Amino acid sequence: MKTADQRTAEGILFTDQYQLSMAQLYFRQGIHERPAQFDHFFRRYPNYGMHEAGYCVSAGLEWLLDWMQESRFRDEDIAHLRSQRTRIGGQMFGDDFLTYLREQGNFSRISLSAIPEGRVVHPNVPLTVVRGPLAMAQILETPLLNHLNYQTLIATKAARIREVSRAAMVLEFGLRRGQDRGANAGTRAAMIGGADFTSNIGLSHVLGYPPKGTHAHALVQVFLALGNSELEAFRAYAESYPDDCLLLVDTINTLESGVPNAIRVFEELRATGHAPMGIRLDSGDLAYLAVQSARMLDAADFSDVSIVLSNDLDELAIWQIQSQIVDEARRHGVDADSVIHRLVYGVGTRLVTSHGEGALGGVYKLVALQEGAVWRPAIKIADSPNKITNPGLKQVWRIYDQRGHATADLVTLEGENPHQEERIILRHPGDHSHHRVLHQNEISAIEPLLVEVLRAGQPTLPAPTIDAMRALRRADVDRLDSGVRRIMNPHIYHVSLSQQLWDLKQQLLSEMRPS
Amino acid sequence: MKTADQRTAEGILFTDQYQLSMAQLYFRQGIHERPAQFDHFFRRYPNYGMHEAGYCVSAGLEWLLDWMQESRFRDEDIAHLRSQRTRIGGQMFGDDFLTYLREQGNFSRISLSAIPEGRVVHPNVPLTVVRGPLAMAQILETPLLNHLNYQTLIATKAARIREVSRAAMVLEFGLRRGQDRGANAGTRAAMIGGADFTSNIGLSHVLGYPPKGTHAHALVQVFLALGNSELEAFRAYAESYPDDCLLLVDTINTLESGVPNAIRVFEELRATGHAPMGIRLDSGDLAYLAVQSARMLDAADFSDVSIVLSNDLDELAIWQIQSQIVDEARRHGVDADSVIHRLVYGVGTRLVTSHGEGALGGVYKLVALQEGAVWRPAIKIADSPNKITNPGLKQVWRIYDQRGHATADLVTLEGENPHQEERIILRHPGDHSHHRVLHQNEISAIEPLLVEVLRAGQPTLPAPTIDAMRALRRADVDRLDSGVRRIMNPHIYHVSLSQQLWDLKQQLLSEMRPS
Repeated sequence: MKTADQRTAEGILFTDQYQLSMAQLYFRQGIHERPAQFDHFFRRYPNYGMHEAGYCVSAGLEWLLDWMQESRFRDEDIAHLRSQRTRIGGQMFGDDFLTYLREQGNFSRISLSAIPEGRVVHPNVPLTVVRGPLAMAQILETPLLNHLNYQTLIATKAARIREVSRAAMVLEFGLRRGQDRGANAGTRAAMIGGADFTSNIGLSHVLGYPPKGTHAHALVQVFLALGNSELEAFRAYAESYPDDCLLLVDTINTLESGVPNAIRVFEELRATGHAPMGIRLDSGDLAYLAVQSARMLDAADFSDVSIVLSNDLDELAIWQIQSQIVDEARRHGVDADSVIHRLVYGVGTRLVTSHGEGALGGVYKLVALQEGAVWRPAIKIADSPNKITNPGLKQVWRIYDQRGHATADLVTLEGENPHQEERIILRHPGDHSHHRVLHQNEISAIEPLLVEVLRAGQPTLPAPTIDAMRALRRADVDRLDSGVRRIMNPHIYHVSLSQQLWDLKQQLLSEMRPS
Repeated sequence: MKTADQRTAEGILFTDQYQLSMAQLYFRQGIHERPAQFDHFFRRYPNYGMHEAGYCVSAGLEWLLDWMQESRFRDEDIAHLRSQRTRIGGQMFGDDFLTYLREQGNFSRISLSAIPEGRVVHPNVPLTVVRGPLAMAQILETPLLNHLNYQTLIATKAARIREVSRAAMVLEFGLRRGQDRGANAGTRAAMIGGADFTSNIGLSHVLGYPPKGTHAHALVQVFLALGNSELEAFRAYAESYPDDCLLLVDTINTLESGVPNAIRVFEELRATGHAPMGIRLDSGDLAYLAVQSARMLDAADFSDVSIVLSNDLDELAIWQIQSQIVDEARRHGVDADSVIHRLVYGVGTRLVTSHGEGALGGVYKLVALQEGAVWRPAIKIADSPNKITNPGLKQVWRIYDQRGHATADLVTLEGENPHQEERIILRHPGDHSHHRVLHQNEISAIEPLLVEVLRAGQPTLPAPTIDAMRALRRADVDRLDSGVRRIMNPHIYHVSLSQQLWDLKQQLLSEMRPS
C-alpha cells in the first residue's frame, strides 16, 4: 500500500461503515453529543479445540491510546465520505454532519478506564470502559476492538507457552506468518505475555530489546551451491560471530552431519577462547534429536550450549516434547532434566496466529447513556443468558483469599465498596441458582482493577514498560490457583456480579421483554 | 504505536534478525553481491480441519512491491543496528557492513517475476521468483513471506466462500477481529478472492469501492435507554437513510419484534415512495429465521428486500444454512430458491482469520546462485520428499485439456518450451513411480504463468485493478474441474516437473547425500 493510502486506511476511517451511519443518525436526532458509556469485554476464554484457556492476559491498550491521539477526520477523510452515495445517487453523509466531524471528530473528549496491560483477565468483566460523546464513542468501537482483541489473544497464547516452558527462554519468530503489518502487534503481545525476545528486528528496537536469531538453511545452501560444505558454512558463521555462534544443524542430516560439524566448529572456537552458544533443530522428531544432540554435545564437553527448537511449536507441542524427552532420555541413559534445562523454544506461526483459535471475540456494548444529569443504564438482551450484557456504570474488584490467591472477580455498580461489606454476595452473571458468599475473614485483599488511563483524550499516566507489564503478568499468574493455570481442562475462575448489579440487571430485563 | 516507531517497525527492519546476520556473513565472505535466485512457494493447500482447499488464489503482490520501493536503510535504522551488541559487548554489525547497507541497502537491483494476483495457484509451484544481489534478496525473505502468505490465505478462503455463495452478495466484516492494521490486508485479499464489498471504510476508499453497512444493536439500545422503542429506532434509521434502509432485527426478538417493526417501517417508506433495502439477522438459527422472515416479508409484499445474514459465517456455515433452508422452506410451504436468492452473507472473523487454518506455510528457498557467468542450481534436501526444493531457474506452465480445463501445472527449467514437444512428460515432484504423458492433441493451450513484475526495482506494469484481479480469478476458477473446486475432499490437481527438471533434481540429490 502506498504511504498516502496507508494514512487513509489506518487513520480515523479504520472503522466500519455502520459506525458512521449510526453517528450521522445520532447527529440527526440531536443525541450525538449525549455522554455515553460503552464496556469492552469478551464472553469466553479462547478454546483451541483440544485445550482451553483458564485465563487471559490483557494487551493492546498503549497502541490503542496512540491511535486515538493521532486519529482525527482530516480533509481527505471528509472528502472520501462526501463522495459516498446513497442507492439513488444522493450524498450519504450530509455537509452539516461532515462539518461536525471535521471540527469535533476526534477523541479529545473521550475518557477511558482499563485493566492494565499484562494483567490476568476473565470473561464478562469490563476490560475497558469508554465514556464520551455518543457519536465518537460509537465510531471508536471497531478500532478499539481491533487493537485489543488481537493483542489480548496473543498475550494469552504466549502466557500458555510460558507456562509449559517454565524457566526456559522463549523466542517469538512469527513475523512471516502474521497478518501483514499486524504481525508487529503480535510480537508486542507475545513479549508481554511470555516471550523473552523476538526475531523481529524493527519491533525489538521499538520495544528496547535486542532481536534474536541465528541463520537459515539458506546459508548452508549458499555454501553448497558454491562447491563448499556445511562445515565451511559453520566455520564462516563462527568467524563472523565467534561469541554468538548458534548453528542450524538440520540442513543435510542432523545427527550425521549437522551436529558433528557444529561440534568441530565449537572445538575450534574453544581453542581460540570463545564460548559457543548453541545449535538449532528445525525439523524431524525434535525430542529424539534433542536427546541425541545433547548426548553428542555432552560427550564433546559442550554441556552448557543451548539447544534451540523450532518448527510449529505451541504449548501442546512443547509439552509433548518434554514428555517424550523424559522417556527418550531414560532409554539412552541421559538425564532428562539436563536436556530440558538447556532447551530454548522458538515459536512462530502457532503463536502469532493463536493456533486453534484465531480470534478473541471481544465486544463493545452500550451500558449507559446520560439524560440530563442522570445516567440511564442500557442492556442488551439475548436468547442466551451468557450474551445478556451487564448494565450501568461499574467497577471490577479482584478478591484474594487467605492464601493470597485470586478467588473471584466481582463486578459491582459504581459507588459500591465491597471492603465495607461484612459478607459479599457473589452472583453468577447468568444463572439464578448460583451464588456464593464470602465473609471478610476469608479475604486477604480486595483490589479494584479498572484504572483511568485517558481523561478527555489525554493519557493520565506514562505508558508502562514491557518489563513492568511482564511483572504484572507474573504476579497475577502466580496468584492463580494451579487448576486455573492448567493448559487443559482448567478450573473455571469465578466471575460474579454484586447483588446490586444483579438486581438492576433483573429489573431492566423484566422491563425489556417484548410485550 | 507512535508514528516514528511505526516507521522503524514497518520499514526495512520489518524482517528477522537472522536475515541481517546472514547478510553480514555474506558481506564478510565477499559474496553479498553475488546474483542469487530465491523461489517463493507453498507446500500444501490450507487444511481447515474438516475440509481442505483444492486450489489457492494468489494475492499480496502489489503491496509487497509498494513496500519494496519505499523501504531502505535510513540513518535511524543504521543507528539501531549499530547499537546491537554481541554476547561479550562488541558491535554486532561492523561499520563497513553498515556503510554498505546505508548505500546499497535497498531493493533497486532486485527483479521479480510472479504469478499475478487473482490467479489460481497450487503447491510446489514458484509463485514469486526473486533475483538480485544475495544479501538484499536474503533480507527480503521475511517481508515477502509476510506480504504474500497472508493475502493468499485470505483470497483463498474468500474464493471458497464465493464458491458456496454462488451469485449471492458477500460482504467482508472482519476489521475488528484481524491482527491490528494487518486487517486491511485481509480486507483487500477478501475483495480479490470473492467478497463484493467490505464494511472497512478506509480500505474501501483506497480500493475504490463503496463501503457497506447498516447499524448495530447499539442503535436500538440507545433508543431503548432513552425510553423509546425499537420501532422508533427503525423509523429514525429510515428517516436518515430512506433509500438505503437495512434494519438489524434481532436486538429484542427477531420474529416477534424485529421483523414486524421492520415491515411497519418498510410500509411507511413505501407510502412515501422509497424502496426498502433489507433486514439483517445476526444471531440464532439463521436458516430458520431467514425462512420465517422471508414468509413475513412476502406476506407484506416485500419479496424483493434482501436478508443479510451474519454471525460467524464461513463456507461450511453458509453451506449448512442453504441445506437447512431447503428443508425448512419445504416444511413451511416457501420456495427455498426464492429465500436463498435474496440472501446476502456478511462474513467477518472466520474470513479475516481463515478459520481452521490461520497461516499459509509459504517458504522462500535459494534455488540458484551465479558464479562467473554460470548459474549454479541449489537444492535443499529433507527427510520428506515433499520438502525437497526444486532447483534452478524455472518457468511454470498451465496446461489446458481439450475441454479448456486446466489439467496440470508444469514446472520446467528456464529455456524449455513445452509447446515444442510432441509428448510432454509430467513427473510427480516427489515420487519416482508417478508420471503422466500428455500428447499435443490432448492439449488446447499451454500458458506460461510467471510474469516479470519488477525489473531492477522498477515495476514493469501498472498495478492491476481489483476488478481485473477478480476477472482473472473467475476465469481461472471456471477452468478448474468441478472436483477441484469442491469445498470438501477436492480432487488433487496435478503439479508436475518436466523430465529435465526432474533429472537435474535427481542429480543434485545424489551429489548432496552426506558421505
